[in-house]
Amino acid sequence: MRWDRLGSVSDLTRTADIGVARLDVDRAARTGTPEVVFAGGKTPAETVACLAGLLDAGAELAWATRVDAPTAAAVLARWPAATVDPVARVAWVGTPPPPVGQVLVLTAGTSDGAVAAEVAATLTASGVGCRRVDDVGVAGVHRVLAVAPDIAAADAVVVVAGMDGALPSVVAGLTDRLVVAVPTSVGYGAAFEGLAALLTMLTACAPGVLVVNIDNGFGAGVAAARIARSAHR
Amino acid sequence: MRWDRLGSVSDLTRTADIGVARLDVDRAARTGTPEVVFAGGKTPAETVACLAGLLDAGAELAWATRVDAPTAAAVLARWPAATVDPVARVAWVGTPPPPVGQVLVLTAGTSDGAVAAEVAATLTASGVGCRRVDDVGVAGVHRVLAVAPDIAAADAVVVVAGMDGALPSVVAGLTDRLVVAVPTSVGYGAAFEGLAALLTMLTACAPGVLVVNIDNGFGAGVAAARIARSAHR
Amino acid sequence: MRWDRLGSVSDLTRTADIGVARLDVDRAARTGTPEVVFAGGKTPAETVACLAGLLDAGAELAWATRVDAPTAAAVLARWPAATVDPVARVAWVGTPPPPVGQVLVLTAGTSDGAVAAEVAATLTASGVGCRRVDDVGVAGVHRVLAVAPDIAAADAVVVVAGMDGALPSVVAGLTDRLVVAVPTSVGYGAAFEGLAALLTMLTACAPGVLVVNIDNGFGAGVAAARIARSAHR
Amino acid sequence: MRWDRLGSVSDLTRTADIGVARLDVDRAARTGTPEVVFAGGKTPAETVACLAGLLDAGAELAWATRVDAPTAAAVLARWPAATVDPVARVAWVGTPPPPVGQVLVLTAGTSDGAVAAEVAATLTASGVGCRRVDDVGVAGVHRVLAVAPDIAAADAVVVVAGMDGALPSVVAGLTDRLVVAVPTSVGYGAAFEGLAALLTMLTACAPGVLVVNIDNGFGAGVAAARIARSAHR
Amino acid sequence: MRWDRLGSVSDLTRTADIGVARLDVDRAARTGTPEVVFAGGKTPAETVACLAGLLDAGAELAWATRVDAPTAAAVLARWPAATVDPVARVAWVGTPPPPVGQVLVLTAGTSDGAVAAEVAATLTASGVGCRRVDDVGVAGVHRVLAVAPDIAAADAVVVVAGMDGALPSVVAGLTDRLVVAVPTSVGYGAAFEGLAALLTMLTACAPGVLVVNIDNGFGAGVAAARIARSAHR
Amino acid sequence: MRWDRLGSVSDLTRTADIGVARLDVDRAARTGTPEVVFAGGKTPAETVACLAGLLDAGAELAWATRVDAPTAAAVLARWPAATVDPVARVAWVGTPPPPVGQVLVLTAGTSDGAVAAEVAATLTASGVGCRRVDDVGVAGVHRVLAVAPDIAAADAVVVVAGMDGALPSVVAGLTDRLVVAVPTSVGYGAAFEGLAALLTMLTACAPGVLVVNIDNGFGAGVAAARIARSAHR
Amino acid sequence: MRWDRLGSVSDLTRTADIGVARLDVDRAARTGTPEVVFAGGKTPAETVACLAGLLDAGAELAWATRVDAPTAAAVLARWPAATVDPVARVAWVGTPPPPVGQVLVLTAGTSDGAVAAEVAATLTASGVGCRRVDDVGVAGVHRVLAVAPDIAAADAVVVVAGMDGALPSVVAGLTDRLVVAVPTSVGYGAAFEGLAALLTMLTACAPGVLVVNIDNGFGAGVAAARIARSAHR
Amino acid sequence: MRWDRLGSVSDLTRTADIGVARLDVDRAARTGTPEVVFAGGKTPAETVACLAGLLDAGAELAWATRVDAPTAAAVLARWPAATVDPVARVAWVGTPPPPVGQVLVLTAGTSDGAVAAEVAATLTASGVGCRRVDDVGVAGVHRVLAVAPDIAAADAVVVVAGMDGALPSVVAGLTDRLVVAVPTSVGYGAAFEGLAALLTMLTACAPGVLVVNIDNGFGAGVAAARIARSAHR
Repeated sequence: MRWDRLGSVSDLTRTADIGVARLDVDRAARTGTPEVVFAGGKTPAETVACLAGLLDAGAELAWATRVDAPTAAAVLARWPAATVDPVARVAWVGTPPPPVGQVLVLTAGTSDGAVAAEVAATLTASGVGCRRVDDVGVAGVHRVLAVAPDIAAADAVVVVAGMDGALPSVVAGLTDRLVVAVPTSVGYGAAFEGLAALLTMLTACAPGVLVVNIDNGFGAGVAAARIARSAHR
Repeated sequence: MRWDRLGSVSDLTRTADIGVARLDVDRAARTGTPEVVFAGGKTPAETVACLAGLLDAGAELAWATRVDAPTAAAVLARWPAATVDPVARVAWVGTPPPPVGQVLVLTAGTSDGAVAAEVAATLTASGVGCRRVDDVGVAGVHRVLAVAPDIAAADAVVVVAGMDGALPSVVAGLTDRLVVAVPTSVGYGAAFEGLAALLTMLTACAPGVLVVNIDNGFGAGVAAARIARSAHR
Repeated sequence: MRWDRLGSVSDLTRTADIGVARLDVDRAARTGTPEVVFAGGKTPAETVACLAGLLDAGAELAWATRVDAPTAAAVLARWPAATVDPVARVAWVGTPPPPVGQVLVLTAGTSDGAVAAEVAATLTASGVGCRRVDDVGVAGVHRVLAVAPDIAAADAVVVVAGMDGALPSVVAGLTDRLVVAVPTSVGYGAAFEGLAALLTMLTACAPGVLVVNIDNGFGAGVAAARIARSAHR
Repeated sequence: MRWDRLGSVSDLTRTADIGVARLDVDRAARTGTPEVVFAGGKTPAETVACLAGLLDAGAELAWATRVDAPTAAAVLARWPAATVDPVARVAWVGTPPPPVGQVLVLTAGTSDGAVAAEVAATLTASGVGCRRVDDVGVAGVHRVLAVAPDIAAADAVVVVAGMDGALPSVVAGLTDRLVVAVPTSVGYGAAFEGLAALLTMLTACAPGVLVVNIDNGFGAGVAAARIARSAHR
Repeated sequence: MRWDRLGSVSDLTRTADIGVARLDVDRAARTGTPEVVFAGGKTPAETVACLAGLLDAGAELAWATRVDAPTAAAVLARWPAATVDPVARVAWVGTPPPPVGQVLVLTAGTSDGAVAAEVAATLTASGVGCRRVDDVGVAGVHRVLAVAPDIAAADAVVVVAGMDGALPSVVAGLTDRLVVAVPTSVGYGAAFEGLAALLTMLTACAPGVLVVNIDNGFGAGVAAARIARSAHR
Repeated sequence: MRWDRLGSVSDLTRTADIGVARLDVDRAARTGTPEVVFAGGKTPAETVACLAGLLDAGAELAWATRVDAPTAAAVLARWPAATVDPVARVAWVGTPPPPVGQVLVLTAGTSDGAVAAEVAATLTASGVGCRRVDDVGVAGVHRVLAVAPDIAAADAVVVVAGMDGALPSVVAGLTDRLVVAVPTSVGYGAAFEGLAALLTMLTACAPGVLVVNIDNGFGAGVAAARIARSAHR
Repeated sequence: MRWDRLGSVSDLTRTADIGVARLDVDRAARTGTPEVVFAGGKTPAETVACLAGLLDAGAELAWATRVDAPTAAAVLARWPAATVDPVARVAWVGTPPPPVGQVLVLTAGTSDGAVAAEVAATLTASGVGCRRVDDVGVAGVHRVLAVAPDIAAADAVVVVAGMDGALPSVVAGLTDRLVVAVPTSVGYGAAFEGLAALLTMLTACAPGVLVVNIDNGFGAGVAAARIARSAHR
Repeated sequence: MRWDRLGSVSDLTRTADIGVARLDVDRAARTGTPEVVFAGGKTPAETVACLAGLLDAGAELAWATRVDAPTAAAVLARWPAATVDPVARVAWVGTPPPPVGQVLVLTAGTSDGAVAAEVAATLTASGVGCRRVDDVGVAGVHRVLAVAPDIAAADAVVVVAGMDGALPSVVAGLTDRLVVAVPTSVGYGAAFEGLAALLTMLTACAPGVLVVNIDNGFGAGVAAARIARSAHR
């Protein structure tokens, strides 16, 4: 066997070297999700260069996460029609595909809102419908039960929670939908910046809970979008 | 000021040196709970000697925890009328006071039963009533709601849970009773022998949750007994 | 069985959706403690909105913790008669119930004062009397013995300590009162921001010690208030 | 609002109290997965009792995980036609539904086989097709590329890996299928019984990776089955 | 400068290569403590060979720690006059120097006895007097105060404690003697095999506390012996 | 037995309540070291008040650690003759006792200098002589050997080291002096803010090493001063 | 670009599927080290099958690590001329290449011997010369200096150490040879099964230290062999 | 044996005491790498003094790492011809030796660039050739395969990666070159500031991976330079 007989991915290996980065141009074709620019460790100019490089290579939607205010300004200066969500810290140039399906995004508390916004923006950019219901933590468990019809109507549920991270366990016991659990760094002391919630979700007493990294709204959104698209294929 | 002017505890300082231990004879008078023998690191003979020493010093009830089978046999050989609970791993010689009040002991799953049994035995030995309802984990949250009348009737609630340790958060949102939370070492992997449940309980999103050490049914029972006795004083 | 046969909590499930939050309006009726606004992750405007929402829903006392200076100013601008404690970082609008009972709040050192202030403010807001004695760490154990009369006069004892967190073990050996132990993040190096004190308190060699999260003065205050009210019911 | 207006789950709350456990009889109807008996902390007799209880309540398939040899023998003694997989440590009584769809299960090394077997058995019991390809770790990355056609043909991919846990990152970069990553406790030293692989998978540089607890083949199987069934609904 | 001008230690560098080990023959002359055989990872024959090698090289006392029963038997078979302490797990051949000074060894509980025995044996072998008082944990703090005269009479105090490890903080507040603190692995759950006690001792709120490794009675004994000898030089 | 029969410490229990603190006035008489003000968590005014309170109570030397620039200025404003060491962050009012004995303070690297300065200032304030030799890390082990004469001339050795923390092990193998090891937070990455050095020192392969908290130059100085004074009593 | 233009590795991708494993037959050609069988998680029959598969595929030397006694017996039963090292737990069938170069393997203590034996066996199997010097820990640092001529004569140095793991820092300060550091799980308490030594080595104050996993003698041997061969190419 | 008979290193022990540091002047002669100034914890003036001291002692190249902007300015003010790399935070005075050999430096992502720059600068200063290829993370594994010719042409490969740290495992499976793995603190949440990548690299499933501290580009560069020079000796 040789590398060229390794299957259908073999001709989706183009890269674009733009100096500041080596863009994985075929990632959308290979994986359904384009290379998304993580603006976190980059200057505004670098993020703009990456977005431009992706558009030059033919992307219909070029997209960045962890976008702070200066970067947002730089993106809007270059592309006045760009979309920027300052809470989600997400920006994109171009038009997302029309939405299919629907993902329900729940938060345990108000402080989990920024991460939930990143989930929602990721779903929109991925062409998947999103419904958010906030502040349904288990300290008032009737709030969870009240969203049962919303859960039943969704293709998947993303649950965003910090502190004790107990919400996914309760939701997963109510539904046959997959629960994508996002621990957040909300809390103090023994919350250990999200570690408590992460461990809670990994050891959830109900099956059907899948976990992403602390504060990783982007990853949860990509995963939920794949589940929704798969159900509407 | 001198030590002898330090208040009412000053004449409750007798000890009994029995060689294998220095018994704190006045602990029951000082704290309401006698020195209880932790049989864990002791030989059967040492545990028997400690119980005998406490009885010699006038205790009405001499009591040991973490009692394994050989120690239980040694206790029964010496005091045929002793009470031994092999699941709770508790043994005592003498008669507990008649029960006052009632504490509700909940478990999240069947595997938490041994710790719950230690709670129950501690309550009994402390002269407090106990009602147990097992297997009401949040994966079927209706089971929690179903015990709401029991919660309302109790002086305090002890919640025993391993894995995600999510049950105390839900219970505390339903009641004005104090919730004494006992994380257990039940689980595997990211449960880290009770650490996950411990952190969950410490960061519970509802106030009114107080936490003891992992698998510490004895400590939870003592605390709940004090709450109950205080309510019926 | 159906959800509506789940007991007395079933009609205490109102929520008020005020946009920025979904207020659990019946929490005070259900649990004895109202939903208290955690101002930590909120803007001053959001905290004010939450307090207003709670008052609109009929709360006699609307209350926030982790209140910084700008939020305190915003609260006072809206309600000039509000009470603000800048050390405890607590604010409330309305009048707390008249105090019943008494809780003793001890600190190991001066640096634990802010957390103890949060305990005290929580007790006051909860309608429970509070007596504070500061700086009684075990390095001068006679200071602990000197408060024995205060301990004997209290319904419960809250012990606030950082660094080695040894004070609750000593106090619990002197009394039949419950000890609510609050580890603080005071210290450096191997104190690991409160972890050392937390582990010490969880493994206290005397029973009767119950633990809350690091720096969680609010949780300790709520719990101690319930014990005191239960003793004076 | 009252509990009985909380949506479609409200009449799926039956439980069966069989003494040793409180079976959540409607869990299959509510969540698509029945209550599965975790034989880990139970005696053979207790596991048999639970399986019998589920069958008595009408289950078409009663099912246990973490089944050791004595428990397997007890199950076969009671139900000679039961299915037992000693590597996966899974047993069931009854006939699984006919398989729909297909999930690809990959292992990084031979030692990950037992966990992969639990994934496969869970898929079979859930009525979903399964294809396993073992020993495709990234130390010979051509082995990963060689399974690209299998990945393309699957509804979802479960990747089971210990030690460095690097395989899911590579697989997720090749496909638009969801990758369910299962860290295993295989390894020594800095593998820290699966912690290294767990952290690797949570921080995977490619999106589309969702993580379950260490050695949790059951949870991964349930999740992958839901994805596959959702795609073939 | 060259190595040979590096001071008075330069001619204390003999080693004896006995195959199974490379004995540091001059260690007693250099450091006041001979190379002591750690029998933990060695066969009985290896420990005997090491002891013989030290005696052959002129040692007046050859000495081993962590001696289990088979090793003790092998030592006694070779040297019938050897001294073996099965609780301390220490054995030696030869006669220790006559004792000077006195070190007080305190334990918090009976379970700390084996470590305290290793401290005591080390002191004896080092030619320093030892007085032990056991079971003076802070849950009955009067027991600590009762040993104040013993503390005042000692050259140094070794405090052995597991679980919360709070005893050294209290002792150090009572005396100008150095406190050598030995955390033990006694306890369960959040004791984390001695970690809780170790952190407590490192963060002791009283100065004058010096810490050794968990269960390291040998190291504590060597250190205390040096303090005592230094005071009587 | 009663508290007043608890020995010679019983009349050394005065405290001075100055509002901001409860000063342990007799600590110097009891322990040889006065209560030293930890300025870390205090305002300049609070530190000044504590120092004044100690002087009012008769202290010959009032002393604070972790003194930052504003606090140093406040001390000097109140007592122009005060001594301030800005590197050690130590200040005192009054005159230390004349020095007896000598402690050698070694650092592994230049970055450990601030902690070593705190050791040195503590020794001076305690009336013990101090000699410092810096930058003798084991990467150039001849530098360690070169200080052998200094080690031989000292009453005790304090070794201050960050990163790998290996220096105490080497020093302890060269001398019969006690080695007080101070791990520092110098380093990055796997140094984990001093944890690596702390563990190294606790597991030192040579006996005679005693460990204090990370960056705790004060504690090391107090301990070394006691050793030195004990040798010159 | 396509996979088949990815360079010289492209035709070294054969695998042999022997049922129990998928052997990476070309690994020796690609990486200079064949696939070595990790016998740890395998039955004796599986290890024998893997070795046979490698020989069938043309390997001149088939080789297994972590070989316990039953597996060693099974290997010798199948290939009576096989080489088995019971201390190193290594077995091989065939003849290693003649040795080139020389690697020096140092241990800090006798207990590190088994890991050092695995290093030595790996070097021999890799066709590289090996010289071992044991028991040269830094508690007698003259022992380290005494091996300076051996260090100077070696192509690389492997240092095996547990407990404080301080030896590599000292060795690296003496030589321009690379130091491959192997932390071992030797020790107790704060050694945390090799974690202390691992952190020490990662933070070594001398450059030129490279670290492998705890107890990973095989990895250290492979790396040192590559350095030695590279120097003699 | 005496220290002066300890081998060839014995006359390479000069130090230069410049007040702020004790320079190990012969380190270059002993180890092939001079003492390099870690500017991290030093003032600009101290770093300049150290560089001057090294030049005064005859160094041909005086060199500092972790150089921030003020220090860079101070170096250039003193030596206008100095070389400063602001990304690598490295500065040197003098001319590096002409390069021999070649080391390939790979990064997984753009954010790892600063650490890779430190590796490259270290190689240049060490007189070894360097080729960098950035942004070849395993999420697009074809990018790794595309550098196979570069790997084959190199004397050693340094792989710099944060987040999951999976790249070294893949590279090591493609080559017989040693892989020096540098975990970086790039990432968030469960990346735990480089811990996840560190553990991944330590447990890499392919041998030939050697690990340095998190973000330690200097250490990786020194090690790779030694390998390259050794191959071209």
